[in-house]
Amino acid sequence: MLKVAVVGATGYTGEELVKLLIAHPEVKLTSLSAKIDKPVAIAELFPSLKGKSDLICEEYDFDKVVKNAELIFLAVPHGVAMELTPALLKKGKVIIDLSADFRLKEPSLYPEHYNFTHREPELLAEAVYGLPEFYRAEIKKTNLIANPGCFPTSVILGILPLARSHWLDESASIFIDAKTGVTGGGRKAVLNFLFPEVSENVKAYKVACHQHQIEMEQILEEAAGSKLDLTFVPHLIPIQRGILSTIYLKLKEKKEENDLWQLFNKFYKDEPFVQVLELNHFPETKFVRMGNYCHIGVRAKEKIAIVISAIDNLQKGAAGQAVQNMNIRFGFPENMGLI
Amino acid sequence: MLKVAVVGATGYTGEELVKLLIAHPEVKLTSLSAKIDKPVAIAELFPSLKGKSDLICEEYDFDKVVKNAELIFLAVPHGVAMELTPALLKKGKVIIDLSADFRLKEPSLYPEHYNFTHREPELLAEAVYGLPEFYRAEIKKTNLIANPGCFPTSVILGILPLARSHWLDESASIFIDAKTGVTGGGRKAVLNFLFPEVSENVKAYKVACHQHQIEMEQILEEAAGSKLDLTFVPHLIPIQRGILSTIYLKLKEKKEENDLWQLFNKFYKDEPFVQVLELNHFPETKFVRMGNYCHIGVRAKEKIAIVISAIDNLQKGAAGQAVQNMNIRFGFPENMGLI
Amino acid sequence: MLKVAVVGATGYTGEELVKLLIAHPEVKLTSLSAKIDKPVAIAELFPSLKGKSDLICEEYDFDKVVKNAELIFLAVPHGVAMELTPALLKKGKVIIDLSADFRLKEPSLYPEHYNFTHREPELLAEAVYGLPEFYRAEIKKTNLIANPGCFPTSVILGILPLARSHWLDESASIFIDAKTGVTGGGRKAVLNFLFPEVSENVKAYKVACHQHQIEMEQILEEAAGSKLDLTFVPHLIPIQRGILSTIYLKLKEKKEENDLWQLFNKFYKDEPFVQVLELNHFPETKFVRMGNYCHIGVRAKEKIAIVISAIDNLQKGAAGQAVQNMNIRFGFPENMGLI
Amino acid sequence: MLKVAVVGATGYTGEELVKLLIAHPEVKLTSLSAKIDKPVAIAELFPSLKGKSDLICEEYDFDKVVKNAELIFLAVPHGVAMELTPALLKKGKVIIDLSADFRLKEPSLYPEHYNFTHREPELLAEAVYGLPEFYRAEIKKTNLIANPGCFPTSVILGILPLARSHWLDESASIFIDAKTGVTGGGRKAVLNFLFPEVSENVKAYKVACHQHQIEMEQILEEAAGSKLDLTFVPHLIPIQRGILSTIYLKLKEKKEENDLWQLFNKFYKDEPFVQVLELNHFPETKFVRMGNYCHIGVRAKEKIAIVISAIDNLQKGAAGQAVQNMNIRFGFPENMGLI
Repeated sequence: MLKVAVVGATGYTGEELVKLLIAHPEVKLTSLSAKIDKPVAIAELFPSLKGKSDLICEEYDFDKVVKNAELIFLAVPHGVAMELTPALLKKGKVIIDLSADFRLKEPSLYPEHYNFTHREPELLAEAVYGLPEFYRAEIKKTNLIANPGCFPTSVILGILPLARSHWLDESASIFIDAKTGVTGGGRKAVLNFLFPEVSENVKAYKVACHQHQIEMEQILEEAAGSKLDLTFVPHLIPIQRGILSTIYLKLKEKKEENDLWQLFNKFYKDEPFVQVLELNHFPETKFVRMGNYCHIGVRAKEKIAIVISAIDNLQKGAAGQAVQNMNIRFGFPENMGLI
Repeated sequence: MLKVAVVGATGYTGEELVKLLIAHPEVKLTSLSAKIDKPVAIAELFPSLKGKSDLICEEYDFDKVVKNAELIFLAVPHGVAMELTPALLKKGKVIIDLSADFRLKEPSLYPEHYNFTHREPELLAEAVYGLPEFYRAEIKKTNLIANPGCFPTSVILGILPLARSHWLDESASIFIDAKTGVTGGGRKAVLNFLFPEVSENVKAYKVACHQHQIEMEQILEEAAGSKLDLTFVPHLIPIQRGILSTIYLKLKEKKEENDLWQLFNKFYKDEPFVQVLELNHFPETKFVRMGNYCHIGVRAKEKIAIVISAIDNLQKGAAGQAVQNMNIRFGFPENMGLI
Repeated sequence: MLKVAVVGATGYTGEELVKLLIAHPEVKLTSLSAKIDKPVAIAELFPSLKGKSDLICEEYDFDKVVKNAELIFLAVPHGVAMELTPALLKKGKVIIDLSADFRLKEPSLYPEHYNFTHREPELLAEAVYGLPEFYRAEIKKTNLIANPGCFPTSVILGILPLARSHWLDESASIFIDAKTGVTGGGRKAVLNFLFPEVSENVKAYKVACHQHQIEMEQILEEAAGSKLDLTFVPHLIPIQRGILSTIYLKLKEKKEENDLWQLFNKFYKDEPFVQVLELNHFPETKFVRMGNYCHIGVRAKEKIAIVISAIDNLQKGAAGQAVQNMNIRFGFPENMGLI
Repeated sequence: MLKVAVVGATGYTGEELVKLLIAHPEVKLTSLSAKIDKPVAIAELFPSLKGKSDLICEEYDFDKVVKNAELIFLAVPHGVAMELTPALLKKGKVIIDLSADFRLKEPSLYPEHYNFTHREPELLAEAVYGLPEFYRAEIKKTNLIANPGCFPTSVILGILPLARSHWLDESASIFIDAKTGVTGGGRKAVLNFLFPEVSENVKAYKVACHQHQIEMEQILEEAAGSKLDLTFVPHLIPIQRGILSTIYLKLKEKKEENDLWQLFNKFYKDEPFVQVLELNHFPETKFVRMGNYCHIGVRAKEKIAIVISAIDNLQKGAAGQAVQNMNIRFGFPENMGLI
C-alpha cells in the first residue's frame, strides 16, 4: 500500500481528493492537514465520510508528513506549494501539486499572472505538467507533478489533436468560451459565490484576462510548435461542478466533419479517460459529473471547427487527474479508483 | 409626495425596499445609507437599477436624514435600530423598523433570544407590531412600527383564524415545519450560504430553538387569549426567496374540511394580500414570488388541521409588508406600489 | 383604454404578456384564448394572478376577438400565426405576432428553417420587424409587427452599432456563444426540460444550426449593408429566464477599448431600454431579470472586439418587447407598464 | 459471478441500478430491458456509461432473462411487477422488486392506494419487505424481496427505535413532514416536473393522502405492536435527489435528549448504513447524496421528540437498498459495491 498525505484537505479539491484516496485499493491515506484552528475529525468536516474514515485533519507538520507518506498531494493556495515543495523533494518524496505553482515554465510569468515572485525557478524546469494525454511518459519518471488547472485541462484536450496535426490556421484567433460551476472558485466565504448571487444568473468574468490562459498557451504552443492566439472568456453558471468549453477555431483548409471527427477519434482512441462522441453528439457536463472523463464533440463548417469539451472540474480538472497521475507514476492501473 | 429614507440599503431587504420605493407613485426616496466605505451610486451596487435611479448610498448621517425624510425605514442589523430610533422619533419622524428590535413586548426576552440588553423598554410598549391583518387600526396611529419577521408573518397568518376562533386544543402542541429560501439569512459572506453548500441540499437548522418562535408565541397567544405550545423547525432549501410553512394543529373537536375552509375564508375575505385557496389546493412559493401576497391552503382530518401558508420572505416577509404599513400609516391605498 | 386580446395565453410568453397587460395603465385586457379543453379562469392556470384578474381563458373565437379588441397579441406556435393574421388584418386590427411567422422577408427560408411553406408572402413584405432600436419609425405606422426572437434580440443589439459603423472586418467570422434559460424552449412536457435533466448541467444544442441564426443575419446584413458570416451556438443552462450572448468579432482596424465603448454608448444613449455598462463592467442576467432592459459590456484586444449582452428572454426577448412595440404603435410612453 | 438482469432500465431508478451493478465486483450484468422502440446501447441512453459498458437495452424477453440471470431486479411501474414475477419465481429465480407490488400484506389495500386489483395475494404473504435494519434474517432466505419505497425507508428508519422501545404515546399523532427531490417522481415528461416549474419553488402535494403512508403504517405498527396514527405530508423541493424527513412525535414520558440519542445510537450501532449523528447535529441530504447511508439526528423537548432523517432517494431509497438486499441474499459483504 502506498502511503499518502494530503495537505490542504478542507477545500473543495481537498475534499474530493480525500474521498478518492480513501476508496483507492492501493493507497493508505495517513495524514491530512490544513489551515485549521485545532485538530478535527475529517468526518466532522465532511459528514459524508461518517462511518468511512477516522482520520484527523491537523495543522501541517513537516516531520509527520515525511515520516508517514511517500507521496504528498498539495491542495494549497497558489504560492504556498512553492514554499513546501523543496524540502519534501529533498527527502525523496513525490509531490503532486494541484496549485499553479509549478505549471508555468517561465518564472517571469508568475508576478504578472499570480502576483508573486517565484523562488524556485530551477524546479519549474524540472516539474512535469500532469496532463497524461500529452506527458504520460514524463509523468512516470518525475518526482514533481504540476497538476493542470481545470480550464486548461478542458481546453487543451479540446485543441490538442488540432495543434499536433497542424490543421490550425495559426494566423487566426482561437476563441474559447468556457462555462464553469462554482466549486471552481474554491471554498471561500465571498459574497459573489452566495447562493442568491449565483442561482438564476450567468455572467462572464475576467474577460480575456484570466490567469489560466497563459497556461493553455504554453502547452498548446509546445504542441503546435508555433505561436497561437487564444482569447479565453470564462463564465460562471449556477452548477456546483463541471466545465463546458466551447472552442471556435479556424483551419487552414476546409474539412469534412467526418475528417475532423476521425482526427480526434484516432488521437484519443487509446486514452482511458477521453471519449470522442459520435458525429452530431455534443457533451453535457452531467455525463462527466463526479467522474474523471473528458467528453468531446466536434462540428465543421467550411474552414471553421467547433470543439466542445466537458469535464468535472474537481475530478479530471483537479483531484481525479491527480489520482490518475499517481496511478501512472506508481504503476497502478491508470483507472484504478476512478470512474 | 412623501419623503422617505432607507437606512441599511445594501442588504437583500434594503435592496427590495429601494426597488419598491423607487416605483411607488406617492413616494420620493431622498436618502440611502449603509455601512459602506465610501459613497457609491445605488445603481452601481444594484445594476438592475441602472437607468432608474441616480441615488447615492452613503454612511448614515442623522442631520441629513432628519432634514430630508418624514419616514425612515430601518433595514439594519438587530441591535442597531434600537440605537437610531429614539432620536428620530424625537424629531417627529415615523419609523418602520425591519429589525427585531421593537417586536417583542417583554424587554427581558432580548438577552436570551437576541443576545443584547434592550435599552429602550418604554419604546417596546409604544411600538405597534406591523401585521396589518391583526393590528391595522393601531398601525394607522403610531410613529413606531415594528415590521414582523418573515417566519412569524407566514406562521401567524396561518394560525390567526384558529387562534381567534378558539377552535384550537390548547393542550396540544402546534408543530410548524417551515422551508425558507437563502435570502432569509441576509447578505453575509459565510460558507454556509455558498452556492455549492446550498444547492442540491436541504437541512433543518436551529431545530426548535429559532429566535422567531418567541415572536410567533407573543402574537398568537394575544390572539388566542391563552398559552400556546409551539414547536418551530425551520429548514433551508435551495431557493432564493420564499417561505412555505406547513403547520400541524389539533382542534378541540373534529371539523369538516369545508368548515375549516369557511373559517379561513371569512376571516380573510376583506384582506387585500391574503388569498385562501380553494379546497384541495395548496400554496406554492412561486405563486407569491416577488409579490406581497400570502397564499393559504387548509386540510382537515379528524381533529387534525393542516394549514400551509406561502409568502415571499423579502416582500410580505419584509420590504413589501413595510410598504404596506407605510401605505396604511400615510393613508395611501393599501396596495399602492405592491403586486 | 386600448382593448387588447392575447391568443396563446398559457405558455411562458403568454403568461408574461398577460401579467404585463393586466398591470398596464392604458390597456384593458378583454380576451384570452389558447388551445384548451374547456374555459378556465386565468387565475387558476396562474395562481399568482389570484386576486388580480377574473379573466377566463377560452378556445380562440374569431368573432369575439374582433368584437372585443383593437390589438391582438399572437403568442401561438410557429405556423399558427400565419393562419390567424390575414382575417384579423382585414378587420382593421393591429397584430403583434410573437411567433417567427412574419420575421423573415424571404418566403423560401420558411420550409428550410421552420418546416412549413409560407402562405402569405405578401404579408412578409408588409410586416415590420419589431426591434424598436432599429425600426422605431416603421413600427409606429404598421398594423403587423413581427416581434423579434429572443436570441436575435440579444445578438442584434450587441452587434448593431458595429454593423452600422462599418468597423467590422466583413471577411471574418462572427462567433456568437449564447447561454439561455429553460423558458426559452417553451412550456412543453418533454424529458429534456425536466428538472433532473437540466439542473447541475450545461450543454450546447443545435450547434451552428439554430433557426434563429438566419433571423440575425437578415437584420444585421441590412444594417451593415453587406454579407456577414455568423456562427451561432446556443447553450442551455439551469436558469429559468435570461439570455447572455458573448459575441466575438474581428474589426478592420485595431481600436482602443474606450473608442469601442464610445461607439456603443453614443449609439444607444437615447434608448430607454439599452444600458451600455461602464468599461470593465459586464452584464449578468440577474440584473435584467424580470425587466425589459438589455445590458451590454464591451472589451477590445488588438483587432478583436468582445461584446456581451444580457436580456430577460421573456421580457425584452418576447413579451416585454411586445408591450414596448404596443406603446410605440399606440403613442403611449415607451416605457409605460415596463420596468 | 452472479448473473443479473435489470427490467426497467431506463428510469431514474433503473439508471442508478445499472451503474451500481456494472461496478459491483461480484456481479455480471447480463440483460437490460425496458419499454423501448428498438434496441439501444445503454451508453447511448446514459452517456455517462460511455467507455464503461457495451450492454444493449431491449424489450423484455422472458426466455432470455431466464437463461441469462439468476437474480432479476424489477424497476418497472406499479402493476407490471405483479405480472412478471410469478413465472420468474417458478423458474427458481430470485426477484428484487423495486415497485410497490409486493410491499403491502393486505391485498384489499391495492385498489384503494394503487388503483389495481392484486392478482397474486399468496405472493404478498410470501414476499419479504426489504428493509435490512428490520428484516435482515428473512431477506437471507426469500426469493421475493419487496424493496421499500423511498419515503417509507426514510420515515421507518426514523421511527423504528421508538416503535420498538414502546416510548411512543400511541394516542398521539405522529406528524411527518418530508422534503423530496424531483427524481422521486420518476422520469416522466410532465409539466409539473419541468425545470421552470420546479426551480425556485417549494410545494406540498398529496397532503395527508400519499400512497406511501399505508406502507409506513404497516411496518411501524408491526414494530410497535399497536395501531399508530400517522399524518404524512410530502413536499417537492428543487433538488435532484434526496429525502429529508422531519418527524414530530409525542412520548409517553418526558425524556432527556441524551437518553433519546442513546436509544437511537444503541439501536443502530451495528448497522452498516445508518449513522446517528452526535447531539445537536442534524442531517443534510448532501451528506448522503449518491450513497446508501441514512443519517439521523434527534432532539427532545419535554415529551416531544423530533427525529430528522436523510437518505438519497435513488440509493438507500431504491437502487442502493436493492443492491444491499442482493448482498445480504447472496452472502456478499453487505456494503460491497456501495458507498
